[in-house]
Amino acid sequence: MAQDGGIGSGKIRLFVDAGLAPDAQVALNRDQAHYLFTVMRQAPGSAILLFNGRDGEWAAEVAEAGKKSGVLICRRQTRVQEFGPDLWLIFAPLKKARTDFIAEKACEMGCRRLLPVFTGHTNTARVNVDRLRAHAAEAAEQCGLLAVPEVTAPQQLGALLDNWSPERRLLFCDEGGAGAPAARVLAEIGGGPWAVLIGPEGGFSDEERGRLATLPWAHVASLGPRILRADTAAVAALTIWQSVLGDWK
Amino acid sequence: MAQDGGIGSGKIRLFVDAGLAPDAQVALNRDQAHYLFTVMRQAPGSAILLFNGRDGEWAAEVAEAGKKSGVLICRRQTRVQEFGPDLWLIFAPLKKARTDFIAEKACEMGCRRLLPVFTGHTNTARVNVDRLRAHAAEAAEQCGLLAVPEVTAPQQLGALLDNWSPERRLLFCDEGGAGAPAARVLAEIGGGPWAVLIGPEGGFSDEERGRLATLPWAHVASLGPRILRADTAAVAALTIWQSVLGDWK
Repeated sequence: MAQDGGIGSGKIRLFVDAGLAPDAQVALNRDQAHYLFTVMRQAPGSAILLFNGRDGEWAAEVAEAGKKSGVLICRRQTRVQEFGPDLWLIFAPLKKARTDFIAEKACEMGCRRLLPVFTGHTNTARVNVDRLRAHAAEAAEQCGLLAVPEVTAPQQLGALLDNWSPERRLLFCDEGGAGAPAARVLAEIGGGPWAVLIGPEGGFSDEERGRLATLPWAHVASLGPRILRADTAAVAALTIWQSVLGDWK
Repeated sequence: MAQDGGIGSGKIRLFVDAGLAPDAQVALNRDQAHYLFTVMRQAPGSAILLFNGRDGEWAAEVAEAGKKSGVLICRRQTRVQEFGPDLWLIFAPLKKARTDFIAEKACEMGCRRLLPVFTGHTNTARVNVDRLRAHAAEAAEQCGLLAVPEVTAPQQLGALLDNWSPERRLLFCDEGGAGAPAARVLAEIGGGPWAVLIGPEGGFSDEERGRLATLPWAHVASLGPRILRADTAAVAALTIWQSVLGDWK
């Protein structure tokens, strides 16, 4: 939840699961009720903005406010739903704070799907998917976004590549310095569904590099002469994609 | 100091002030000695990589190791000094963690100078310049960089603009959505010394926007249709600059 200031109207925005429609009632879970009524001191009659990633943004009114629950009623739609370009981010989980950061940034950068993968050199053995979802939702609440990227269950990179649909291109950001500049690679290949693949801090293994080189839908690219941390590389690659092929044009 | 893993050779890298030359002796301060000898358990004879932002990178050997002090001796230069393009980042300080993040990312993105400014809507009243420097140095140590951006003392944005040298262009990233896409603005104007200006979470004031619009060397630009947090905007703008005009080409 958008506990940390927020940008824009100053109104509280809340990402919810429920469908949003005229007079729809939205039940709050315990965390949402605590946030709205205890932290933010909202009360029956208060106006809140709701979005669910499907039905646009709605102005809603607090109907019931309890310590552990609450009900809002949708009054009117304030924005129609928008979807960003068809861009995914595949990343190897990092330490907790940097993984949180990637979830937040992927949301701000307009990713539709966030896919954590384990690679040969990934240090982290587990991923808290709920935590990633919460960070992405919080970024959407604070930045006035209407969509929150879907977070998939973590999987092995090899399995992900085995099951890949080749109509989606993969921008393989190799910190080893192989590949032409990312902007040039993207401009030459052009638009359509894409995914950006960022490796772990330890880089890709030779086996992974070798396999990616054989895949006709995977395109190796460079992110400049300096080695970037993986979280920086994620923001940089998504920026270049949006700038060259996405909705920043 | 690079306490958190590091990328590349696995060798410990340390950013120091002292000049580096054949057989130069480098005295460690208390923090550096604690890090090298207590945290990293290095001892006389251990090999460490040193850089100072001027003399390239040097392989050095521990000559004396104490709890609060130590001496290293430069043995041979391992890399000659490189400087990135002439790019500065001007930013309004944010909460502590996000300001730390900006210092780290500005270093990875190859900025030469980091200029914290206070604006009409800046929430933070003070900036810890030593902390910013330490974060930038740590990023350089971990990412194998040879230069650390200079961090200037904080100043008012108005005073900075009063004293600006007009041969350096300013990319004014206006979260209000004014301006053409940043990549197009940069491609049209072209290379030379530049600075990127990122506003505070609350955005620029109307007065600031008005003044920037009158400055012939300031160019307003957009970073896409979604509102970005200031730290995200900093990485995105630096990425586009490096990709269009800098050393990522």
